[in-house]
Amino acid sequence: MMASSEHTLSPQYSFPVQIYYEDTDFSGVVYHPNFLKYFERAREHVIGADILANLWQEQGLGFAVYRSDMLCHDGVEFADIIDVRTRFYFESKYRTVWLQEIWRPNGKKPAVTAQIEMVCMNKARQLAPMSSSLISKLSQNFASQIKL
Amino acid sequence: MMASSEHTLSPQYSFPVQIYYEDTDFSGVVYHPNFLKYFERAREHVIGADILANLWQEQGLGFAVYRSDMLCHDGVEFADIIDVRTRFYFESKYRTVWLQEIWRPNGKKPAVTAQIEMVCMNKARQLAPMSSSLISKLSQNFASQIKL
Amino acid sequence: MMASSEHTLSPQYSFPVQIYYEDTDFSGVVYHPNFLKYFERAREHVIGADILANLWQEQGLGFAVYRSDMLCHDGVEFADIIDVRTRFYFESKYRTVWLQEIWRPNGKKPAVTAQIEMVCMNKARQLAPMSSSLISKLSQNFASQIKL
Amino acid sequence: MMASSEHTLSPQYSFPVQIYYEDTDFSGVVYHPNFLKYFERAREHVIGADILANLWQEQGLGFAVYRSDMLCHDGVEFADIIDVRTRFYFESKYRTVWLQEIWRPNGKKPAVTAQIEMVCMNKARQLAPMSSSLISKLSQNFASQIKL
Repeated sequence: MMASSEHTLSPQYSFPVQIYYEDTDFSGVVYHPNFLKYFERAREHVIGADILANLWQEQGLGFAVYRSDMLCHDGVEFADIIDVRTRFYFESKYRTVWLQEIWRPNGKKPAVTAQIEMVCMNKARQLAPMSSSLISKLSQNFASQIKL
Repeated sequence: MMASSEHTLSPQYSFPVQIYYEDTDFSGVVYHPNFLKYFERAREHVIGADILANLWQEQGLGFAVYRSDMLCHDGVEFADIIDVRTRFYFESKYRTVWLQEIWRPNGKKPAVTAQIEMVCMNKARQLAPMSSSLISKLSQNFASQIKL
Repeated sequence: MMASSEHTLSPQYSFPVQIYYEDTDFSGVVYHPNFLKYFERAREHVIGADILANLWQEQGLGFAVYRSDMLCHDGVEFADIIDVRTRFYFESKYRTVWLQEIWRPNGKKPAVTAQIEMVCMNKARQLAPMSSSLISKLSQNFASQIKL
Repeated sequence: MMASSEHTLSPQYSFPVQIYYEDTDFSGVVYHPNFLKYFERAREHVIGADILANLWQEQGLGFAVYRSDMLCHDGVEFADIIDVRTRFYFESKYRTVWLQEIWRPNGKKPAVTAQIEMVCMNKARQLAPMSSSLISKLSQNFASQIKL
C-alpha cells in the first residue's frame, strides 16, 4: 500500500471475489476494466450498500469516481478467488482516496494496485460536502477521529 | 425468421456490431449474455435512441424485456463484424414482439436467433399503453397501417 | 419450478448475489442480460469452478448455452441481495437442462424465471458426450442414480 | 492532450461510440469502468482488429494494459454519441503509451481523459518485443519514421 503520512488511514478491509466466465476475455485472463468493478464492489462493502442506497434516495447524494490510476502487474484467471484489499482516507469534505489491491491465491505481491479518488456529488452532478454525521459513520472503524 | 401469419411485420432492419475483447470470454468466443446486448442495441436503432430518451424524460415511459427466448447455434469470434437482423410486430398496445438474428460474415445460417417480447411501462414499472402517436411513429416504415 | 415428470431433478441449490452499481442501468433496475450472468454464476457453483477449470484444461471440454428462455416478472434493484435458485436434470449425455429462478428479499414469487439448456462441447465447438465419471460427479447429490 | 516533447506522436484518431442502456447505471450516467472499454475499442480501430487477431493467432502476441490513469470530469448520458480521440507513441519496443479523451456532443472540454500504457506480451504473459515490421505497420501514419 502506498504511504500517506499526512492522512489517517482506515483499517484494511478484505473482500473476496470469485472470477467467472463473464470476467475473462479470449486472451484467457480477466479483462482489465473488470478490475475497476471489483474495486467498486469492495468499496460498497466498506461503506455499506444500504448506506449508499439511503444516501441516494433520501439525500440525493452519491460518490463518483473522479480519478482512477491502476497498475496491472499480473493476469488473473478463471476460477481464481481473489482478495480485494482496501484502505482509504478523507482528503477533504468532498473527497476520499482509496488505496486498493487485488491479490491472487498464494500471490507474493499484488496482481493489481490502484489509487482511486471519489467525490461526493448531488443528483445534478455538482460537488457536495459530506455531512459530519456521514463522515463519522464512514470513519467509525478508524483508529482516530477524523476532523475536516 | 419465425412466421407470424396474424401480425403485420416491420421491414427487416440490419445493424452491424463489431466484436471486441470485452465481448469474448476465455473459451474464445462471445459470452452468451452479450448477444442480448446486441439485440437491444439493434432495437434502439430501429426505434431511435432520441425517441427512447424523450419518451423516458417527457412521458416517463420505457420498454422493458418481458421474455427473451434465445437459441445459440454457433460461436461468434473476436474481430467478427456481425449483422443483427431485426423485424418486429405489435401484439397489443402494451406489447411488441421482436424476431432477431445474428449472422456472422459469410454465414449460411444465423449464429443466434431470438424472440424477444417487450412491454411498455411507466417509471413505477406498471404496464402502460403506447399512445396512438407512438404506435404510428414506430410503425411508419410498415407496409400497412397498424390498428390495435 | 417447471415440472419434469420424466427426468430426475437435482436438489434445489441456493446462491446469493448482491446487486451493485455495475448491474443496474439508468431506468433504475438491473439490466436484463445481467440475469443470465447470475444464472451462470449459480450453475458454476453447482458444478464447481475447479471442476469446470480442470475439464477445460485437461479434457478440452466445456458447457455452452444452447438455449435460454427467460421471463422477467419484476424489476430487481440496487443493493438487493437476490437468491438464485437452481435445479437441473440430464436430458442426454450431451445435454443438461437448468430450471433457475431469481427471488428478491421478501419476494412472494420469483422476479425472474428461466429454462436454460447447456450442451457439452470440445474446443472445436463440436458436441461431445459427458463421460460416465463426469455424470456421476455432477449427479452425486441427486436422490437417485442417473442412467443415460 | 498531454504534451510529450521527446516522442513522436501518432496523428489524432476519432472514433464514435453510441451510449446504450448497457452503458449506464442507476445514477443516470455511464458507469465509469465502461470508459476503459471505449478506449480499448478505439485502440483496436487504430491498430486494426484483423491485425490484432492475426498477431494473436499467428505469433501468439497481444497487447495488455499495464497502467491506466483516467480522470472523469463530466458525466456521459444515455443516447449520447461520444467522440473518442486517440493519439499514441512508442516508448520502447515493448511499450506504447496512449493519450485518449472522450468528448460529448457539443462539449467544450473532454468529459474523460486517460493515459494508458500497453505492453506487448506472449501467450505465457511474458514481455515480448514488437518486431520492426509490426512497429512499421503501427506507425505508417506517423509524420516521421519510428526508430527504437
